[in-house]
Amino acid sequence: MRIHGKPTRTLWLAPDGWGVEIIDQTQLPHVLAVRRLETLDDAEQAIRDMWVRGAPLIGVTAAFGLALAMRQDPSDGYLGEACRRLLATRPTAVNLRWALEDLQALLRPASPAERASAAYGRAVALADEDVAINAAIGTQGLALLRTLWAERQANGAKRLNILTHCNAGWLATVDWGTALAPIYKADEAGIPLHIWVDETRPRNQGASLTACELGWQGIAHTVVVDNAGGHLMQHGLVDLCIVGTDRTTAQGDVCNKIGTYLKALAAKDNNVPFYVGLPGPTIDWTIEDGIASIPIEERDPREVTEVIGRSANGQQMAVQITPDGTAAANYGFDVTPARLITGLITERGICSASKAGLQSLYPRR
Amino acid sequence: MRIHGKPTRTLWLAPDGWGVEIIDQTQLPHVLAVRRLETLDDAEQAIRDMWVRGAPLIGVTAAFGLALAMRQDPSDGYLGEACRRLLATRPTAVNLRWALEDLQALLRPASPAERASAAYGRAVALADEDVAINAAIGTQGLALLRTLWAERQANGAKRLNILTHCNAGWLATVDWGTALAPIYKADEAGIPLHIWVDETRPRNQGASLTACELGWQGIAHTVVVDNAGGHLMQHGLVDLCIVGTDRTTAQGDVCNKIGTYLKALAAKDNNVPFYVGLPGPTIDWTIEDGIASIPIEERDPREVTEVIGRSANGQQMAVQITPDGTAAANYGFDVTPARLITGLITERGICSASKAGLQSLYPRR
Repeated sequence: MRIHGKPTRTLWLAPDGWGVEIIDQTQLPHVLAVRRLETLDDAEQAIRDMWVRGAPLIGVTAAFGLALAMRQDPSDGYLGEACRRLLATRPTAVNLRWALEDLQALLRPASPAERASAAYGRAVALADEDVAINAAIGTQGLALLRTLWAERQANGAKRLNILTHCNAGWLATVDWGTALAPIYKADEAGIPLHIWVDETRPRNQGASLTACELGWQGIAHTVVVDNAGGHLMQHGLVDLCIVGTDRTTAQGDVCNKIGTYLKALAAKDNNVPFYVGLPGPTIDWTIEDGIASIPIEERDPREVTEVIGRSANGQQMAVQITPDGTAAANYGFDVTPARLITGLITERGICSASKAGLQSLYPRR
Repeated sequence: MRIHGKPTRTLWLAPDGWGVEIIDQTQLPHVLAVRRLETLDDAEQAIRDMWVRGAPLIGVTAAFGLALAMRQDPSDGYLGEACRRLLATRPTAVNLRWALEDLQALLRPASPAERASAAYGRAVALADEDVAINAAIGTQGLALLRTLWAERQANGAKRLNILTHCNAGWLATVDWGTALAPIYKADEAGIPLHIWVDETRPRNQGASLTACELGWQGIAHTVVVDNAGGHLMQHGLVDLCIVGTDRTTAQGDVCNKIGTYLKALAAKDNNVPFYVGLPGPTIDWTIEDGIASIPIEERDPREVTEVIGRSANGQQMAVQITPDGTAAANYGFDVTPARLITGLITERGICSASKAGLQSLYPRR
């Protein structure tokens, strides 16, 4: 997507051909900072401290992290250690494991001398593949939005109102985004849009990242607190919800940012279509029941008791919102059961959130 | 309730017999500040700027505000002006209108010379009435919690987990609270409790006020983001939800802090009982369908784009979480339809959220 008109990805190979440059998303929306990763340590920190986040981007960053590690030490031992360390940075994202397994299968049989260049080659390919997948999700979703807009326009609507949760946009991927790709394609196609952006506590990726990237692309949007979506839907102010997914089970349950389930319940209760932008690699074919089987990451309680923002004098800082010593729990994700999901927008087409639906698009599994 | 062991109300008549003292709740949880109100202007500001908040406390503060106004100028003209101004401070709370109508009915026929003392007398009576109502809600709710605890204990539970949204506690009333009164009574009765406290964006009354008063009373609690309740309920971590209400319709729809509806949906979806602590004066017998008929207060968008807390150096300050210039919408309340509510805990007993239920307890209407 574009930043101030200039096409930009969220991660790219530096001009020297081996360093990896990323946008440090913890500095957004107030500062656009680029960081350079040179070692396994750097890549580990980038994922763990959420300089990069979003399932697809985490996967690609891990792949480049393994390439950096192989440049440092291409031994079998370090390959194993690097995979273990990268896998431990974020337990929920299935893309992380998927990317690491993919690279390991390539690197294990290779001689140490070949590993670094093989890893770089595959990491670059994974990044390009992510872009292609997301662009395809956008095209598939565009067809859906065209149909919905034609209906709404016939009923006198001035624009299509879409609610999204967290950031499953360009910044969560290498480019285009998953949930937001259909929105960007629809905007390019001239459909008038307005996006309701859930702020998405505790880390406020909606308020900071989604608002930021929609602003860069010039798409009308309004930030609301996570509590507001139900009220908006009760009053006909939402035509469609689109969210992303960190992990999708074989039966179509979706594990996404905490609070997604509450919005899906409200959508169901108000007959608002609820779609998930889903890249194939987030499907975990080994799991059926997401609520029973997906371990939910618990993060630092300070993300709940403190909020990070920019003070009046322009400094990024944290303010504490609870009394001293208050306990807090910080569950990172929840599971939205397939029964609440209208459809899955994948790079191969749109299907129902069900085993049959997924298998119709991914028949080899 | 007690602050550091000392019984304290949220509003009281000053020792001079005419000034009104309140806890400035915008300073909590970090500073316990008492403010003195002396004029209609002061009372208006106290309600509008949310030094006091919570439907019952707003009603009582408005009554004292009218008393202060009559002390300044007991003319018919000023009585009318004072009522208009106080009514305009917060459009949603039915207690506000109710208290003002009650006092007006008393003051209109009185001579100007009698109005100030009559208003003070009635305001004091309303405060005491609020305390009595809330204590009675606590006693009614205690019976419910005893039964539920007996069931859970028989199944091996170590404590009763209750989720609450916003602050419908002592600080929202003159004493005891509405949603929290049953919790305080159950704690006194020795039932082991743990409270999940929704932080309640945008103003974080849960994280700041509910956590604060539960801490003062020594009741175990954990703050979570508003997004988390659905996940907690999916995993059996919530035995019961209890929330407050700003306005209840004749058919049992409940208008409460934005986000209440989403929690009620999750409770229904997971068979978790969802109760509302409801003082009789919040019932609006003139309205049936809450979603269609209750106007929802829209507040300053900066409550969404900025978060107030305490910085590392101890100062209360706001930090901006959105990009500069981002639009935000700030709906203060939502309506939870009666169909999602297990029961209403009133000062007269527990009833179903329905016209028949309410009329069984309030038969004169």
